[in-house]
Amino acid sequence: MEAHKISVTKVMTKKPKPANDQLGFGRHFTDHMFIMDYHIEKGWFDPRIVPYQALTLDPAAMIFHYGQTVFEGLKAYYTDSNEIQLFRPEENIKRLNRSSARMCIPEIDPELALTAIKQLVAVDKEWVPTIEGTSLYIRPFIVATEPYLGVAPAKQYQFIIILSPVGAYYSEGINPVKIAVENQYIRAIKGGTGEAKTAGNYAGSLIAQEKVTNHGFAQVLWLDGYEQKYIEEVGSMNVFFKINGEVVTPALSGSILPGITRMSVIELLKQWGVPVRETKLSLTDLQAAYQQGTLEEAFGSGTAAVISPIGELHYQSHALVLNNNQTGPLAKKLYDTLTGIQYGKLEDAFNWTVSLT
Amino acid sequence: MEAHKISVTKVMTKKPKPANDQLGFGRHFTDHMFIMDYHIEKGWFDPRIVPYQALTLDPAAMIFHYGQTVFEGLKAYYTDSNEIQLFRPEENIKRLNRSSARMCIPEIDPELALTAIKQLVAVDKEWVPTIEGTSLYIRPFIVATEPYLGVAPAKQYQFIIILSPVGAYYSEGINPVKIAVENQYIRAIKGGTGEAKTAGNYAGSLIAQEKVTNHGFAQVLWLDGYEQKYIEEVGSMNVFFKINGEVVTPALSGSILPGITRMSVIELLKQWGVPVRETKLSLTDLQAAYQQGTLEEAFGSGTAAVISPIGELHYQSHALVLNNNQTGPLAKKLYDTLTGIQYGKLEDAFNWTVSLT
Ligand SMILES: Cc1ncc(COP(=O)(O)O)c(C=O)c1O
Ligand SMILES: Cc1ncc(COP(=O)(O)O)c(C=O)c1O
Repeated sequence: MEAHKISVTKVMTKKPKPANDQLGFGRHFTDHMFIMDYHIEKGWFDPRIVPYQALTLDPAAMIFHYGQTVFEGLKAYYTDSNEIQLFRPEENIKRLNRSSARMCIPEIDPELALTAIKQLVAVDKEWVPTIEGTSLYIRPFIVATEPYLGVAPAKQYQFIIILSPVGAYYSEGINPVKIAVENQYIRAIKGGTGEAKTAGNYAGSLIAQEKVTNHGFAQVLWLDGYEQKYIEEVGSMNVFFKINGEVVTPALSGSILPGITRMSVIELLKQWGVPVRETKLSLTDLQAAYQQGTLEEAFGSGTAAVISPIGELHYQSHALVLNNNQTGPLAKKLYDTLTGIQYGKLEDAFNWTVSLT
Repeated sequence: MEAHKISVTKVMTKKPKPANDQLGFGRHFTDHMFIMDYHIEKGWFDPRIVPYQALTLDPAAMIFHYGQTVFEGLKAYYTDSNEIQLFRPEENIKRLNRSSARMCIPEIDPELALTAIKQLVAVDKEWVPTIEGTSLYIRPFIVATEPYLGVAPAKQYQFIIILSPVGAYYSEGINPVKIAVENQYIRAIKGGTGEAKTAGNYAGSLIAQEKVTNHGFAQVLWLDGYEQKYIEEVGSMNVFFKINGEVVTPALSGSILPGITRMSVIELLKQWGVPVRETKLSLTDLQAAYQQGTLEEAFGSGTAAVISPIGELHYQSHALVLNNNQTGPLAKKLYDTLTGIQYGKLEDAFNWTVSLT
């Protein structure tokens, strides 16, 4: 298949765009979407950009019953030089294909996927918000569409990309959040689907999230599924701790989502000569460091917030207050550097950004 | 809401029905379906029976991204006295609501759900196949329909019921299957979603199933997620072993689906005075019993096959051949009794069946 033959059908009438201060996250969608079909006898076919529209699926479509699906999340940024650029999209596409392998979904030509993302964003480029901190969230996903009530990999799929203009995550500047350690529910375990970006992981996590949001916590910190002793990740972020000058983060043990922001943070720290270690990190170790006064900073990393400083970490009867509930200098530097590169304010020494043109 | 005000819109033209020997499983669907909507501000509303039709959902509908969904599976049987009856439908509805609680989905009035199932089957009663061993498979399910890319419980859902006429599971009489023990992938762990009938559990299991079907195995036997030592369940069945006159089955530890056939098997065994024990059962114990010659029978239990004798159980380099690869007398008696009750050939002493009328 020729990767670049994407047909384009444009809308007759464009939708009104939301005001910059009304964006929120994931509530507004642009005028167009990308769709491509898969049939086991044809492979992937008919890549097309079409007006944003409802999906029409048989009620027996396997996505509704057996959840065979994967997704990605990345952003397009409007730069100071009036360009639009993506942040490490090839990594999202690689992860999409790795998730698909786990979920028995046919892989997609990475070149075609990148072209699809770029062309779709280009068609809807007026939707990329231009105000500081805003961006266009890109959501590629694949769903099993075959109508069949049998537990087996589907023979038909759709690969879809939709776009959502999103507001600044920190409307009043980067700010620490309160996190609660979850000790009843489990997100994932090695041998399960935790490494894959697939719907079931998120569905299973809702109940824990619900429990804590009512108590003023932003997200939960997940522990390992075996002993509920080791730290894994936070809601939709990976997590880092600065202990006695060294940065530690849970190693990718098979149950943690390998974040692209996480990967970028590690690469930046190495470049800066800050010691960084991927390891097995217990809550007990963390508590010990806290008591010794060596737990200097904690923060999450993810596409939505980029860097999210953790001001308080609660578990059982403990409340760890980190860096006086202030954004730490390392979190700040990482945030400034990553967003600086994303918005084209800083030199992109790693070649992380991909321009639309 | 009045539970019985279900509006009905019938098709103008009925579809041709598949021949009895062409039924298969989950491939054909009847003329009608049931739909009911939920909005957080209205609760469940507008229960209706309508022509079988595609679902039209925003591509941002949360089901496609975060997998918030639950389902059930039960059957309607055509009896010797030309009636149609359901098998323990109240138990499926209870389990649906328990699954929903785990997945943060609003519960459904059990009475309304039962009425919906009965009325829908009545409308499509010509679709209930009448040949020995066939039945009408009933698939109730709930999907999150709100268009929102945020990880939170949805504010909008649809509850849907579709029907599929299904062929005899054993077209040539009840027959033992070969099962492979899975020792790499994990289905579920306590604190996860294994107890709930939700899509993600099945999506995560496909890769293991794929691995073994190529080698002639019918299904995988799942082990516990902690140590991969203890037996949990088989594909879409619970599992029983007869050891030295006693029947043992894995206890509902928090990661096993509580099967309604399992529950019925236990009740029958108790009535018959056969010792039955729900316990933690290791592969090592099973192997020991096998070597001592006391592992008399093994079988799975589930709505699709009712009872499925296990002829061979393979793990690592071991192959346990059970009861000479023949259907054991207990499996046969359970199968005959359960199907006898389901098809109205035997007295229903437990009051398990529910007549349509
Ligand atoms: C479970 C989970 N962990 C971590 C992350 C962070 O990954 P990334 O940095 O690629 O956005 C995400 C979000 O994408 C996530 O959903
Ligand atoms: C994972 C799993 N285990 C066990 C069962 C058996 O349950 P039941 O007897 O209610 O059909 C099923 C099928 O419904 C299932 O999907």
